[in-house]
Amino acid sequence: MFKTRITELYGIEYPVVQGGLMWIAKAELAAALANAGGIGFMTALTHREPEGLAAEIRKTREMTDKPFGVNLTFLPTLFPVNYDPYIDVCIDEGVKFIETAGRNPEPYMEKMKAGGLVVTHKCTSVRHALKAQKIGCDVVSIDGFEAAGHPGEDDVTSLILVPLTVDALDIPVIASGGFGDGRGLVAALALGAEGMNMGTRFVATQEAPLHDNVKQALVQATERDTSLLMRTLRNTERVLTNTVAQQVLEIEAKGNTQIADIAPYMAGLRGLKMLNEGDMESAILAAGQIVGLLRDIPTVQELMDRIIGEAREIITGRLPEIVD
Amino acid sequence: MFKTRITELYGIEYPVVQGGLMWIAKAELAAALANAGGIGFMTALTHREPEGLAAEIRKTREMTDKPFGVNLTFLPTLFPVNYDPYIDVCIDEGVKFIETAGRNPEPYMEKMKAGGLVVTHKCTSVRHALKAQKIGCDVVSIDGFEAAGHPGEDDVTSLILVPLTVDALDIPVIASGGFGDGRGLVAALALGAEGMNMGTRFVATQEAPLHDNVKQALVQATERDTSLLMRTLRNTERVLTNTVAQQVLEIEAKGNTQIADIAPYMAGLRGLKMLNEGDMESAILAAGQIVGLLRDIPTVQELMDRIIGEAREIITGRLPEIVD
Repeated sequence: MFKTRITELYGIEYPVVQGGLMWIAKAELAAALANAGGIGFMTALTHREPEGLAAEIRKTREMTDKPFGVNLTFLPTLFPVNYDPYIDVCIDEGVKFIETAGRNPEPYMEKMKAGGLVVTHKCTSVRHALKAQKIGCDVVSIDGFEAAGHPGEDDVTSLILVPLTVDALDIPVIASGGFGDGRGLVAALALGAEGMNMGTRFVATQEAPLHDNVKQALVQATERDTSLLMRTLRNTERVLTNTVAQQVLEIEAKGNTQIADIAPYMAGLRGLKMLNEGDMESAILAAGQIVGLLRDIPTVQELMDRIIGEAREIITGRLPEIVD
Repeated sequence: MFKTRITELYGIEYPVVQGGLMWIAKAELAAALANAGGIGFMTALTHREPEGLAAEIRKTREMTDKPFGVNLTFLPTLFPVNYDPYIDVCIDEGVKFIETAGRNPEPYMEKMKAGGLVVTHKCTSVRHALKAQKIGCDVVSIDGFEAAGHPGEDDVTSLILVPLTVDALDIPVIASGGFGDGRGLVAALALGAEGMNMGTRFVATQEAPLHDNVKQALVQATERDTSLLMRTLRNTERVLTNTVAQQVLEIEAKGNTQIADIAPYMAGLRGLKMLNEGDMESAILAAGQIVGLLRDIPTVQELMDRIIGEAREIITGRLPEIVD
């Protein structure tokens, strides 16, 4: 057992969180996280209909009796999304924890709080974290420059952003972006965070429901194998460097990029072909710089045991031995 | 006393290092670091003649009897530099520790080792760190993306680069880039480093020999107030955002940048006007993202006491309380 403000709040054993992973964070991963003592947030919008989310929640309940959550990301989508029914599903199905991301969750706060949801907002800057606290969020998960997916436009790294956010807020802070092992967990806790969030690391686990080629590609990648796409549109996304990513970078290098020029390359259906069929050059895959430190594809339980064992050794062994 | 491989090697009390700061790292700072239990490396090339370095070393000796070192940076300069006489000065004056940076120090390794110098090489990638170890360097100081000055072209953050380098090398590693307080020191140690290097943090101390306006500007700056210049020339430099920095960025945004277009803005003499006269808009000032966490201008002794006190509290208080 590790005891921090977020293990208490979530009712979990270890301060290790799996935040939203579109298409990937489903029942298998959420249940594996729960059973290993952490917490996983399944992505609501992986399901085109709210009923799909309801079914996924029920499926997870059959696999674990421990806590898990739902991620709801407010990002521009190809088709307009009605978020309310997804929140209703969470409340009706008795989910207690919701992770919001992307745009400001304020329009939905009243509904979420009235439904008894504990709201963790994921964001990429101190000013957005302050805003989240102000509108009543219970936890902030702060994402540094090294993170997969959308690290924002400020390019401030976790080493700076985590302590800054901790200093600025009263509510608990989860460190996210660049974390993948027990060393990272202790670093996060030393910087003042109450836990660490991992995304890319959980994609390369046995339980992640996707083609083995994708996991192998993450293990093979070095720390220099990610690219920042859509910077020119101020909607930056950190992805694994591959043929499609390089095509997008070439389009952006020409200048005066329009979203329509890039949209075909970012399309979710191409991503599903990658995830399901293992075609690594056909689509974009979000991946953080932590890929450089991934060397295997463990089960979630093995990964958690390793992280906690390593963190415990650092906290009770390495560090006290340094201080005489 | 903290005990790590680098406190043992350097013969110092705390694993806190001040690496090369052109024009700033002179006797006052090196002596203050030494007397506070850390180690400072004065910059050799701050002196146009090797005799100036010799005088600075002797001046430092009058201010402390504890260890200090000399930084020798092999970077492109306006005038060709003959490095050998500077190394001779270090050896003749009995300096034991040298920090090399910039280009590969291999051409000077034989001379340095024959003179009994312990060589710490500062670099920005795992492959350069491996090379440094191979050619006989004793320590590597690894600089992440968040660092001031030249963070390299890979944009890999300290959170990733430090553990990767520790895993790759047998010689001790110092974490550099993004560090400025006791939380950062514990994070560095947790990530496997044997100590932390700070640059920007030491510029905002009482002993740093420069105009108070510069120190105040660092304290006022937020984490979003640094810019990466000369990216288009693949000689990236992280600096404090000001009028001159914005002028350089505008030139680079036009494309097809030549060094001659930018050189006038980067000139050292304009920098001296800033450092000596406090004109904050006339020149470029290297500064890391840690500026966002600087809130005062302590003496080096006060800073060290605070860092060590905070690190000790985290190691003996906060962290063990988390692990039950």
